[in-house]
Amino acid sequence: MSEWVPQSVSEQARKFLAMPPVRQNMPALDDTPGWERMVEQTDQLLLQRFLGVELPVESEETEIDGVHTYVLRTQGLPDDAPVYLSLHGGALILGGGEVCRLMGSITAMTSAMITWAVDYRMPPRHPFPAALDDCVTAYRALLKERDPRDIVVGGGSAGGNLAAALLLRAKEEGLPMPSALVLITPEVDLTESGDSFHTNRDFDNIAASLMEVNQLYANGHDLAHPHLSPLFGDLAGFPPTFLQTGTRDLFLSNTVRMHRRLRAAGIQAELHVFEAMPHGGFGGATPEDLELHAELRRFLDAHRRPAADPGAAS
Amino acid sequence: MSEWVPQSVSEQARKFLAMPPVRQNMPALDDTPGWERMVEQTDQLLLQRFLGVELPVESEETEIDGVHTYVLRTQGLPDDAPVYLSLHGGALILGGGEVCRLMGSITAMTSAMITWAVDYRMPPRHPFPAALDDCVTAYRALLKERDPRDIVVGGGSAGGNLAAALLLRAKEEGLPMPSALVLITPEVDLTESGDSFHTNRDFDNIAASLMEVNQLYANGHDLAHPHLSPLFGDLAGFPPTFLQTGTRDLFLSNTVRMHRRLRAAGIQAELHVFEAMPHGGFGGATPEDLELHAELRRFLDAHRRPAADPGAAS
Repeated sequence: MSEWVPQSVSEQARKFLAMPPVRQNMPALDDTPGWERMVEQTDQLLLQRFLGVELPVESEETEIDGVHTYVLRTQGLPDDAPVYLSLHGGALILGGGEVCRLMGSITAMTSAMITWAVDYRMPPRHPFPAALDDCVTAYRALLKERDPRDIVVGGGSAGGNLAAALLLRAKEEGLPMPSALVLITPEVDLTESGDSFHTNRDFDNIAASLMEVNQLYANGHDLAHPHLSPLFGDLAGFPPTFLQTGTRDLFLSNTVRMHRRLRAAGIQAELHVFEAMPHGGFGGATPEDLELHAELRRFLDAHRRPAADPGAAS
Repeated sequence: MSEWVPQSVSEQARKFLAMPPVRQNMPALDDTPGWERMVEQTDQLLLQRFLGVELPVESEETEIDGVHTYVLRTQGLPDDAPVYLSLHGGALILGGGEVCRLMGSITAMTSAMITWAVDYRMPPRHPFPAALDDCVTAYRALLKERDPRDIVVGGGSAGGNLAAALLLRAKEEGLPMPSALVLITPEVDLTESGDSFHTNRDFDNIAASLMEVNQLYANGHDLAHPHLSPLFGDLAGFPPTFLQTGTRDLFLSNTVRMHRRLRAAGIQAELHVFEAMPHGGFGGATPEDLELHAELRRFLDAHRRPAADPGAAS
C-alpha cells in the first residue's frame, strides 16, 4: 500500500488518505456462523463510526409487502413529497438494520426527499436473488403510491449494484422507470474485470477485492449475469443518471465503464470524479464530501418535476 | 512500468497498452541546440505515425496578424461556417508545422467545423508567453470574422493548457467567451501537483513528467501562475466545457480537478473518462477513440446555434 499523500486535496482528506488501509480476512464460503460473526462485528464498527451524529431526521420502521424498510424524512416535508428509494452499501453483506437506517438518514438529508431505505435480505442466510427481490418488491409498492416521475432510485457501492439491477428487473417486468438514477461508486461488476481493480489496488485505503463475498452472494449463479453485474445489462431506456467516483477508487473502472455504457445507450448521464478520493469518500465531512452532496442535490433538483404543477406531463 | 493489460477494453486498445512505454531524456535547460534536435527528431516520429493517413481536408496556410495558422475544412463547408480554434498538443514544445496541420485536420474531420490550427511559437527559441500571445492574437482576429457564438476553442494536452489560458487572458482583456471549450486530457497544471502524476506513473505508457519542458517553457515565470497553470485561475464565466481523460492517464487528476473547479464556478461542464486509456488515447482508430470523437461531435452540435437562424439571440 502506497503511503504517499497528495497536496491537491483538503487537509481533512489528506488525514483520511494517511489512514492505514482497511483489509479484512473473509471466512470460508460454507462457514455461515463465521460470516455472521464478521457481519455483526463489522456493522458494530460502522455504527461506532456513526455514533454521535444522529441526524434531524424523522424515522419510521415499517414492513412493505414483507420487506423491512425505514421511511425517513427531514422535518416539514409534505406526505406526498417525492421519494428516494435508497439501497444501502456494504458489499451486499453489511449495512443492514440500524446501519441501513443511519445511512438512509444521510440520504434523506442530502436529497431533501422522503427516503425509503430498504433493509433488504443478505447472505449468508439469504443469497441472490433475495436482496434484489426485496428491492423489486419495494419499488412495486412505491409505484402504487407515487407517479414514477416522483421517484428516484439510488445507492452507493453494493447499493449501486442493486439500484442498477433493480432497473433492469423493472424493465423486464414492464414497470416504468423512475425519474432518475443515482450511482455512487457502484459495484456494478461482480466479476471485477475493470482496470482499476489492478491499478488502484495499492492506492485505495478503503476497498479491496470483494470476490469472496461476491461468490457468497451469487450462490453459484454466474457473476456476469446482468442481475448480478448490471454493467453487462441492456441499459436502453434508463433514466437520467448521476455517477460518482474518485481517482483512487477501486471502483473507478466500474463507474466510468457504467457511464460509457449508459452514454452508448443514449442515456443522459453525468460523471463526477473526485481527486484522490478512495471508495466511498473521505469520511463524510470533508469539503470534498460536502461538494459531492451539493452536486447531487443540484442533480436531484434538476430532475424533479415542479411541485406546483404536479399534473403536467414531463 | 506495469505490463498488466486489462480485458475490459477493445482488442486494439489492449495491443496499444502492451506497447513499451515512451520515455525520453531531456537536454539541459540551456542546451538550445539539444532541444532543437530533440524537437525535430520527435516531430519526425510523429509525422511517420501520421504517414498514409492524409485526410480529405482542404488545407490553406496563412499568417493571421503575424501568427502562422492552417485553415482546414472538410469539403462542402460554407465560408461562413462556425470555426474551431484548435491549439495543438505536444508538451508546449512539439507539434508545430506539418504536425500541427495534420492534427488540425483530425479536428476538422471530427468537428465538421472550419478549423483554425494555430502554429504558435514555442521553446527553446520562444518561451512563455509567446505561445499564449499567438493564441490571443488568433482569437482576436477570429472575433473580427465570427460572432463568438460561432466559435469553439479547444485543444489536447498542451493545447488544453493554452485553450484554458487563452480564455483567462480573453476575460482579462475584455474579449467575449466562445460558445464552448474543449479540453482533451489537458495539461492545466504545470506544477504537476495532481495525484495521478504519482498513481498513474507506472500505468501510463505514453506520458511521463514534463517538468523539465515546463521549466523551459516558463523561462523563470512562476509555474503556478494561471497563465501557465490555468487550473489555478478564476474560471467564472467560462463557456460550456467538454473534458476527457482516461483512468490510466497521467493527466487524470489534471482533468478531473479542472472539471470540479469549473463546476464549483457554476460552469456547465461534462466529464468523460475512458477505461484504461493512457494520455492521448489508444492511438487514434480504436473503438474507444471513435466513441470519443462521436461524443465530442454530439457536444459540439448541441452547443452550435442553428444555422438557419443566425441572427437569433442565444
